[in-house]
Amino acid sequence: MDNRKIGVFDSGVGGLTVVSEIYKQLPNEEIIYFGDTERSPYGSKPKETIHMYTKQIVKFLKSFDVKMIVIACNTATIISIEELREELDIPIIGVVQGAISMALLTTKNNKIGIIGTEHTIKSEIHETLLKKENDKIDVFSKACPLLVNIAEEGLSDTDIGFYACKHYVDSLVQNGVDTIVLACTHYKLHENNFKKILDCSIKIVDPAIKTAENLSEILTEKNMLRCTHSKPIHEFYVSGVESKFSEIYGLIFNENCKAKKVDLS
Amino acid sequence: MDNRKIGVFDSGVGGLTVVSEIYKQLPNEEIIYFGDTERSPYGSKPKETIHMYTKQIVKFLKSFDVKMIVIACNTATIISIEELREELDIPIIGVVQGAISMALLTTKNNKIGIIGTEHTIKSEIHETLLKKENDKIDVFSKACPLLVNIAEEGLSDTDIGFYACKHYVDSLVQNGVDTIVLACTHYKLHENNFKKILDCSIKIVDPAIKTAENLSEILTEKNMLRCTHSKPIHEFYVSGVESKFSEIYGLIFNENCKAKKVDLS
Repeated sequence: MDNRKIGVFDSGVGGLTVVSEIYKQLPNEEIIYFGDTERSPYGSKPKETIHMYTKQIVKFLKSFDVKMIVIACNTATIISIEELREELDIPIIGVVQGAISMALLTTKNNKIGIIGTEHTIKSEIHETLLKKENDKIDVFSKACPLLVNIAEEGLSDTDIGFYACKHYVDSLVQNGVDTIVLACTHYKLHENNFKKILDCSIKIVDPAIKTAENLSEILTEKNMLRCTHSKPIHEFYVSGVESKFSEIYGLIFNENCKAKKVDLS
Repeated sequence: MDNRKIGVFDSGVGGLTVVSEIYKQLPNEEIIYFGDTERSPYGSKPKETIHMYTKQIVKFLKSFDVKMIVIACNTATIISIEELREELDIPIIGVVQGAISMALLTTKNNKIGIIGTEHTIKSEIHETLLKKENDKIDVFSKACPLLVNIAEEGLSDTDIGFYACKHYVDSLVQNGVDTIVLACTHYKLHENNFKKILDCSIKIVDPAIKTAENLSEILTEKNMLRCTHSKPIHEFYVSGVESKFSEIYGLIFNENCKAKKVDLS
């Protein structure tokens, strides 16, 4: 057993969709979350900049002696996970691999849509990994830069969020995809919009579920689960305005959280 | 006479609304424009960061031996103009003062709405300057963080732009303003939306017009107007994707521009 906390980070509030799955699947674990809300979105920033940010964040999380780190951000996973893994003496997982296995299990017509930030889409990592598993898969990708901004403003469930989602997924629908991968953890916050826009024959793949499963497997396998009857206490840190983060946390979890502001730069 | 170019900069494409007015009012002048599209939006970044950016940009523009600099960005004007003015040996103007004089001339019921980025609204500079001129003025302010992002994506004239504008100005309308100041140069790109949303009794103040007038006055007064019959040649530089900038330029001016990418950092 290992009663230390799990470090989770994202460019902002998007990683809370992963936290939500961890709460469900591993309710006894404690989380330290860092949301880089001041410097969000990561999706179209230079790679070197994002890599510098992720190193700062990992150093911050390590200062709490976390037992494992979850990069709850596709962009940061793609750009930094390999290098971080080499440097770290604790396990670290991202959100990309889970999306791939879920998408392959979901599609029936082998036409998969990927929506993500500009970096994620440009990297073509989902396309490469999907085709490696099954070269008959057709992948249609769409960068959706506004969806992170809208989610960070807490405006997903408004007409703004609806029309932005519609604008971005229309071309994928026209291409006949039967599966759309949310390759950005923020996009889960637009779930209601996708449900309204998409025919029920099109399935949404949310990597958060599989990521929490992967986390659970690793902790179980390495005998690192938290084993105590005391109620878990989670901590939330942000680089931007605390109240904005807490407000969105409230919308997602229907309960309060007191986020603390830290300056990592 | 002074045949050197005028340096104009903004966090992205918003400053093109000021360029548009310079084209109209000073058609013989030549412009060097820098749009910091890679690092846009400035509106909620730390002040020190924005100040560092503006210094880099002014150094870049000075390398072309410009005769004058126009900060076509409210956020950058508010944060940096005083310090830049002290350091520079050429005139520099911003976009705030023009907005104030136009708003005072426009309002009839003394209720003025200000829309801008988070920094601009938090600075309360428009409120302070308006009340200094007339303490009977009521000012209602609203930060509209998404409007820059939407304009930078070239999506102003879509349902996304419409509903975002509606979301932000509704409370000002309820407060009974008869004048709304576009305290961010990007917002002019949403002009069609505001026209659809607002009753014709509410007037929009676009500081770009007055800014170009101020520029014209200074150049005339200091005998620095360009005096040659050769057709002016403008140059456009960006820190982000050139094609995205050129596309939006095309939408505004209905003609092509070849933007060049530079890395100032």
